[in-house]
Amino acid sequence: MKFALSHIPDIRFGADEIDNLASHAKGLGAIEKVAVVMDSFLATSGLGKRVEDMLTAEALTVVTYSGFAGEPKLKHIQEATEIARGADLVIGIGGGSALDIAKIVACTAASGEDAMHYALAANPLPRNALKKIMIPTTAGTGSETSATNIFAGPEGKKLWIWGAESKADLVILDPALTVSLPATLTAWCGIDAFIHAFEASTNRNAHAAGKVFGHEAMRLIAATLAEAVKNPANLDARGKVLLGSCYAGVAIDNCGTAIAHNISHAMAGLAPIHHGLATALGFEVSLPWLADADTDDLNEAAKVIGLSRASEIPAFVTKLMDDCGVTRAIPAAFSKFTAADLATEMRATENQPMRRSTIRDVADADLDTFASSIMSMQKEG
Amino acid sequence: MKFALSHIPDIRFGADEIDNLASHAKGLGAIEKVAVVMDSFLATSGLGKRVEDMLTAEALTVVTYSGFAGEPKLKHIQEATEIARGADLVIGIGGGSALDIAKIVACTAASGEDAMHYALAANPLPRNALKKIMIPTTAGTGSETSATNIFAGPEGKKLWIWGAESKADLVILDPALTVSLPATLTAWCGIDAFIHAFEASTNRNAHAAGKVFGHEAMRLIAATLAEAVKNPANLDARGKVLLGSCYAGVAIDNCGTAIAHNISHAMAGLAPIHHGLATALGFEVSLPWLADADTDDLNEAAKVIGLSRASEIPAFVTKLMDDCGVTRAIPAAFSKFTAADLATEMRATENQPMRRSTIRDVADADLDTFASSIMSMQKEG
Repeated sequence: MKFALSHIPDIRFGADEIDNLASHAKGLGAIEKVAVVMDSFLATSGLGKRVEDMLTAEALTVVTYSGFAGEPKLKHIQEATEIARGADLVIGIGGGSALDIAKIVACTAASGEDAMHYALAANPLPRNALKKIMIPTTAGTGSETSATNIFAGPEGKKLWIWGAESKADLVILDPALTVSLPATLTAWCGIDAFIHAFEASTNRNAHAAGKVFGHEAMRLIAATLAEAVKNPANLDARGKVLLGSCYAGVAIDNCGTAIAHNISHAMAGLAPIHHGLATALGFEVSLPWLADADTDDLNEAAKVIGLSRASEIPAFVTKLMDDCGVTRAIPAAFSKFTAADLATEMRATENQPMRRSTIRDVADADLDTFASSIMSMQKEG
Repeated sequence: MKFALSHIPDIRFGADEIDNLASHAKGLGAIEKVAVVMDSFLATSGLGKRVEDMLTAEALTVVTYSGFAGEPKLKHIQEATEIARGADLVIGIGGGSALDIAKIVACTAASGEDAMHYALAANPLPRNALKKIMIPTTAGTGSETSATNIFAGPEGKKLWIWGAESKADLVILDPALTVSLPATLTAWCGIDAFIHAFEASTNRNAHAAGKVFGHEAMRLIAATLAEAVKNPANLDARGKVLLGSCYAGVAIDNCGTAIAHNISHAMAGLAPIHHGLATALGFEVSLPWLADADTDDLNEAAKVIGLSRASEIPAFVTKLMDDCGVTRAIPAAFSKFTAADLATEMRATENQPMRRSTIRDVADADLDTFASSIMSMQKEG
């Protein structure tokens, strides 16, 4: 046994824990100016004012950036960096996009370098990054506990910035902030988090320490996601999915993902699709093939969710997706592509790490089969 | 559900992982001078030279302090602080004493203040503490992942320094460093770690996040401790006990201990006794009474170690102690005290937090019963 477990930030969990934001901010050191990066719909929902008010009430100077929607682009990061200059602390509030922007900005605002300076590990991140508090309001990406940050570069290509320096100092998990998430997104994000936990616990990089978090995440999400979808106001269920998503973030931060994420990223390379939905669809079409590997890790994962053996996992996941009301359909924009187009994306260089980490060797023929399954799905609209 | 999980450092696990010490040290930033705090028998065993050689080979300046044995005293911390002045990094290698000294020195050497300035939370720890790498060579205290540091004050009284600033940046868990630990100490320290995990998972402060670590620690230690005692060279068993001890440290860092530690600290107040042994004895005499509480947490803990219900835990622990060859005997020095003396120590102010955190209300009569059970044990020598 040999492993590295990357550090895990302070975590504060509880309904309305965000009310203690100012004291948490001040607990991080000599903080005077705070840059808030927040989803635009959250900023206009009243949460923006609530956050600003509670910080200014404690004599903190607050600047807010919420000029983005959907996947973060380089220009969003540049705009946010301008606003954050001179801040001591960056607070990210929202989905994975808000958190990824906030985490990158904590580095770029400290060093004065452009995000492209760090993209694809071109240069190491600065050691003096600003302090960071991350507050996820969707339960899915696990960005609050990871060192990975995704954005679209100047030509629209998906880029990443990776490094421990971008990790949060403090994570606030407040289930009350997640109750307004629509059922569809709750389901897609929650299934994505389950897949993070599952893939990190069963791929070639899986290790004992990562599995502690992956397994706990699988337990929490499998037991409560359908309830969170059906009864959005159930704070207990919301909280368990949120915590599961956070632990799943720890799991992928250490052990990464596998084939379902290869398929998901490949789909995103063809046409816009929600990451959680794409990953769920990719997971379901590849899972019977994966479960045939019948490894110890797969059987252990089966037991974690109350099953007897690996071969039972595909039916379990299909039922979970059914219980969460996930429609197996892809956006209409995919109509103009073929299964061969998707298989080509699956073979793209940037998607090979997820192919290689899969516990079974993935033959080209396997990719073709998965691509056919995906592209034969119903198209929306 | 509501909880705070304190941050967890980077962890590197593996046999001979210590060989990568220099690269880990340099990974923490601009490091030029390193202060090593190491148990004296380790320093003379060859490990001291090995560590110095690998650090100086990477152009690091190394100073070493190993002028202590047994429980750390104020003067040890003062001596180590003098040596560590000007260092950028403190490396603690050894049992809980070495790690506690190292963690405190990282604060005092940075601020220039005496350890007494911080004792019993008189003043907050400095925010600019030196970087810290902790390398436990016993598997028991969990000091490598905790914010608590114990030492004897100028009048010999046990004092503590607590604060997140004293926590490690990086922990190296190298099972090869633990194979020379004598069987008796392996057993005492390992049982102590099991008790950390158990008490943190079942006391009044227990919470969902702490239990993730507490339960995993209980699983690991229960399954492998007897083997580690019997076959000291079994690196797999050694590793699992070491990892379990580390996770148990996370559990107590978040949720603290309970009655077994009240009894253990009370015993130490009367006469010198190994902390692990005292805790094991205190655990066994109070466990049947505790298990009667039959709480959900206790039943969950029972299931974690393969039992059906809480009432089966005492017999399980007695068998574990038997399998590990733990003799139920106390040092001869206890002959001059009575059960009433011990019960008085149990009621001392400094031991009340552990009494209060116990899941059952602890009546004075209960303390008397535990004290009688302990003091009626065989005396050694």
